[in-house]
Amino acid sequence: MELWFSELHTPNVKLSIKVDRQLYSGQSEFQRIDIFESKEFGRFLTLDGYMMLTEKDEFIYHEMITHVPMAVNQNIRNVLVIGAGDGGVIRELTCYENIENIDLVEIDEMVIDVCKQYLPQTACCFYDPRVNIYIEDGVKYIRSCENQYDLIIVDSTDPFGPGEGLFTKEFYGSCFKALRADGIMVNQHESPFYEDDVQAMQRAHKRIVECFPISRVYQAHIPTYPSGHWLFGFASKKYHPVADLKEAVWKQNGIKTKYYNPKLHVGAFYLPTYVEELLKSVE
Amino acid sequence: MELWFSELHTPNVKLSIKVDRQLYSGQSEFQRIDIFESKEFGRFLTLDGYMMLTEKDEFIYHEMITHVPMAVNQNIRNVLVIGAGDGGVIRELTCYENIENIDLVEIDEMVIDVCKQYLPQTACCFYDPRVNIYIEDGVKYIRSCENQYDLIIVDSTDPFGPGEGLFTKEFYGSCFKALRADGIMVNQHESPFYEDDVQAMQRAHKRIVECFPISRVYQAHIPTYPSGHWLFGFASKKYHPVADLKEAVWKQNGIKTKYYNPKLHVGAFYLPTYVEELLKSVE
Repeated sequence: MELWFSELHTPNVKLSIKVDRQLYSGQSEFQRIDIFESKEFGRFLTLDGYMMLTEKDEFIYHEMITHVPMAVNQNIRNVLVIGAGDGGVIRELTCYENIENIDLVEIDEMVIDVCKQYLPQTACCFYDPRVNIYIEDGVKYIRSCENQYDLIIVDSTDPFGPGEGLFTKEFYGSCFKALRADGIMVNQHESPFYEDDVQAMQRAHKRIVECFPISRVYQAHIPTYPSGHWLFGFASKKYHPVADLKEAVWKQNGIKTKYYNPKLHVGAFYLPTYVEELLKSVE
Repeated sequence: MELWFSELHTPNVKLSIKVDRQLYSGQSEFQRIDIFESKEFGRFLTLDGYMMLTEKDEFIYHEMITHVPMAVNQNIRNVLVIGAGDGGVIRELTCYENIENIDLVEIDEMVIDVCKQYLPQTACCFYDPRVNIYIEDGVKYIRSCENQYDLIIVDSTDPFGPGEGLFTKEFYGSCFKALRADGIMVNQHESPFYEDDVQAMQRAHKRIVECFPISRVYQAHIPTYPSGHWLFGFASKKYHPVADLKEAVWKQNGIKTKYYNPKLHVGAFYLPTYVEELLKSVE
């Protein structure tokens, strides 16, 4: 018997992964949640059939969305994480002793429950005493926040379905208001390669540029995401992501990483010409 | 009707592309050659079923294997290209007015003929008067070369089948001998992600390190190659790929690129930690 999971990256391209077993399948109020076991990638989580993470390559996404801002501002104490019910961002954040408080706002409690049960590799640090979990729509949660967070990480799904509101100008404006005067917002920023992803990326970038004085995009290789070329947004009130990188101070944390390092941090902001042009055209 | 081309990246992962038509299928003395037409990627070439290039993303590979060495040494006059029957590397090289001679050694004449007929986007510059085409095994050709080339580009297939000899220590040693005292060799260096590719990458790196005083690896996002995370090797007798980059001089060439730019050149050498560790373990 052969069992293959396939995800259409466009109507004309698909990535398929051979599956040993489906470990879980359920429908929450918001989306369909599945967990599969595979030889190549270990366990993986899909939401409405879209790949969220695999045990083999999730370190890339979670390290890059977390350590880039943390290496720019060493005085981050209070962090808001939106989405991220799999726990991967929390795992990376809790490595930092200077972080005092992490508010996690996840719309779908069932994602957290399923990940706790099936993905202990990522959902390992929810019990850290600094973590507060709010089961709530991030868009609504943030409306009432003002001048309180040093860092906001938007670990959203794609800009349709439950994650749609996390790509709106209203939401980015709320993030700006919720951040302190030297605050940073980092978000997953889609991909520059396939047409639909390009449009989502450009739309997000345009809206962030309108809200933040500093808005830069950086890249990583994520093999299980469409095209493998994935982007993150770094939006900031004060700090520049490269000029303000504190390499030596970051290294003193002694955090062991598999993808991130301060040199790669710099290189990740040096984008291909065609990506730069796509971004500039909406700035 | 639906027609899908699939390539197994490992026995457990495959990338599939919807095909409009198969434009060509033939068997040469060395390999099976196919050309397909697709909506997402335009035309694409496969050898023995392995993806070689698509019209949509070939610019990434060809720009990165060519412009990186060209931006490090501005006095490159005499170039040897091994493999590259699709013409993409020749197209990029012929942009440089200071190049006086390009020797192309391709083992399989049928690849050149098929690309000339079906892939005019890459096979556009074979008629440049500076280009000499030798239909010959690159491993044999280079044995008799000594102290004559400024740059060797090894645009090989994978390290099995016709391309196998281009990953041996004997071949890298011949390249060293064929290069002048400030010569550079660049090669396609496989991928760091899937196990078999990792082994090929490490084996190649070990052998190149044994032959050249300077040996560094750089990366690019190539969506249609396994994992999308692809590596190139930069081996050199004198020049360092980052310290000796001549950004201003390169820009004076006025070459229009879609992926390469001098900042990205630098960033491409800042590798993920796990890739650095894989390379260091065989140095």
